[in-house]
Amino acid sequence: MGVRVGVVGGGQLARMMIAPAVELGVEIRVLAEQDGMSAALAATRVGDYRDLDTVRAFARDVDVVTFDHEHVPQDVLRALEAEGVQVHPGPDALRFAQDKLDMRARLAELGMPQPDWARVTTLDELQSFLDDHGGRGVVKTPRGGYDGKGVRVVGAATEAQDWFTALAEDANGGALLVEELVDFTRELAQQVARRPSGQIVAYPVVETVQRGGVCAEVIAPAPRADGRLAAEAERIGLAIADGLGVTGMLAVELFETTDERLLVNELAMRPHNSGHWSQDGAVTGQFEQHLRAVLDLPLGETAPVQPWAVMVNILGGPAQGSLAERFADAMTRHPSAKIHTYGKAPRPGRKVGHVNVIGDDLDDVVYQARAAASHFVD
Amino acid sequence: MGVRVGVVGGGQLARMMIAPAVELGVEIRVLAEQDGMSAALAATRVGDYRDLDTVRAFARDVDVVTFDHEHVPQDVLRALEAEGVQVHPGPDALRFAQDKLDMRARLAELGMPQPDWARVTTLDELQSFLDDHGGRGVVKTPRGGYDGKGVRVVGAATEAQDWFTALAEDANGGALLVEELVDFTRELAQQVARRPSGQIVAYPVVETVQRGGVCAEVIAPAPRADGRLAAEAERIGLAIADGLGVTGMLAVELFETTDERLLVNELAMRPHNSGHWSQDGAVTGQFEQHLRAVLDLPLGETAPVQPWAVMVNILGGPAQGSLAERFADAMTRHPSAKIHTYGKAPRPGRKVGHVNVIGDDLDDVVYQARAAASHFVD
Repeated sequence: MGVRVGVVGGGQLARMMIAPAVELGVEIRVLAEQDGMSAALAATRVGDYRDLDTVRAFARDVDVVTFDHEHVPQDVLRALEAEGVQVHPGPDALRFAQDKLDMRARLAELGMPQPDWARVTTLDELQSFLDDHGGRGVVKTPRGGYDGKGVRVVGAATEAQDWFTALAEDANGGALLVEELVDFTRELAQQVARRPSGQIVAYPVVETVQRGGVCAEVIAPAPRADGRLAAEAERIGLAIADGLGVTGMLAVELFETTDERLLVNELAMRPHNSGHWSQDGAVTGQFEQHLRAVLDLPLGETAPVQPWAVMVNILGGPAQGSLAERFADAMTRHPSAKIHTYGKAPRPGRKVGHVNVIGDDLDDVVYQARAAASHFVD
Repeated sequence: MGVRVGVVGGGQLARMMIAPAVELGVEIRVLAEQDGMSAALAATRVGDYRDLDTVRAFARDVDVVTFDHEHVPQDVLRALEAEGVQVHPGPDALRFAQDKLDMRARLAELGMPQPDWARVTTLDELQSFLDDHGGRGVVKTPRGGYDGKGVRVVGAATEAQDWFTALAEDANGGALLVEELVDFTRELAQQVARRPSGQIVAYPVVETVQRGGVCAEVIAPAPRADGRLAAEAERIGLAIADGLGVTGMLAVELFETTDERLLVNELAMRPHNSGHWSQDGAVTGQFEQHLRAVLDLPLGETAPVQPWAVMVNILGGPAQGSLAERFADAMTRHPSAKIHTYGKAPRPGRKVGHVNVIGDDLDDVVYQARAAASHFVD
């Protein structure tokens, strides 16, 4: 076919690119960390994404390289680009998803609304920030955190003592990020897709519900998001994608504050859990959109196909047996549920699948999605 | 995961089972006729589906065997069943899709409405049928025909002379099928899914438009299909699936006559071109439904997600270059179009892909689907 996408990383995000790639007629190849991962069906190579020779050999047979995660080192990405490989998102954009201090600094330059924050290298600097913000704050390691890991709410600088001690040895550039504890009413997420040639489209802003630092469910579009709020979320998403030169999907996680402002929480430069609803709920799902964007193909319509879509994660899975053993009960009771599983062994807290339901009655859609997902978890 | 489906045949129908299999978390394996076919991504074996040893070895590693086509010989299917392999649809059902004379006889027993027909073994018998039906008729080889092949409209028995001559040597059991030339206003198709344990669901009846004996486009649901007509189509579909013991998807092609009756034209016991709209237009697409049905899992909701869905085939493809080179134009002008391509080399008349569009304005949906598809054909 002549169009080949290479995805670095064999997790569920790579897996969920397979379906739209097959339908569109795009050849998809995956560099997996090991055998038997979620995206094993499309894995053409197994190896270490931190090793330039491995990634270079993988890149040789594809038209564009993209990612299941944001962990490929900058030096690997830059070496590929220097050799003429199409890499989307590229290292100049990805660094802002790889390092939260770089992100905060760049968003400040762009005038994006965000929580008060500071770069701190000592206990004294951290305590000083806390003293200025009601005695509390959120400390984050700039790199390597996800799903609540590398994030800690503290009431005293000493509670981050271990992280400061580790700073000298680790990859975090000698500093931590501290942010004010935002007084928010809920969390939202804004999905945007952008092509290398500049075309950019936004999805409706969605509401995300976190439990234990992990995304539990998503409602699309966000209920009670009036025109002003939705427009503000879209404005922020588009400005960040343009300002950071993102190519592919961008997810902007947002706080809606008690005084009705939006503040940027986190960024992800790839399909993101907050966009999974679009697989069944939008004309163009985020995984197809990501493929189109990184291939610099025209972007697809982002409109919802029904008034509401709800996504509920299957977290942990069954204590005994496989997810497949739960299909019958879930499908019998919830024939409208779209079940997505990732081929991962169940383990406490692990994201092993999700359920999407669409419809025109939000209460019913929420009920169906939650109830269907609950069949997969003990 | 413990759930493995084996698909015999590597064409586009097997290919389109890959996406829902991956999403659901069902392992899909394909026995392809050769390398590089449409379903190559899931091909775990290449070999001859007429060879029992080949099919037996393929079947050993899966939980159920199903099909991309209806050509696996009865003796192979019966040997597998005798060895305890789950085969869906099974040979007792498939024979009615493999032999049109058997089908006509069985549908008559079931009291299904169909054109007048006869089994003819000589020119005299054929001429006698034609004389009784206005001098014309449709002669069909009972086996091996598809997309208009093996079908001939005749005005005299001698026009089928070559087929009679070949009868002695070929696999058609020494007889031809002749049917009256039906005076129809349009063609419809009814999709039904049935599980081994008996659960059965129907999709809305659709209108199919044929050009040159090949399906060109499908409108779902069929316009101007009032309650009586839709109910009659559903009744016929359900009765045939039950009566023939079909497992998996069944497509019943129907004539709507000038006097507003429905007559059964052809059957297909697999996902069918007339059901491709459901990939993007129904809560549960026919490829997911087929997987669920052959695995004896509860069937999914068949309701449309928007009022109208239109499917237009990409027939032949571009005279020069690949389908992928046409993506940009089609996607720029038709961002709501869902493009499906089959990884097949373009060739005159060949089905190489299709486009689905959904929406609430039928004229616009038809326009978008036709116009998007036209970008792929010279």
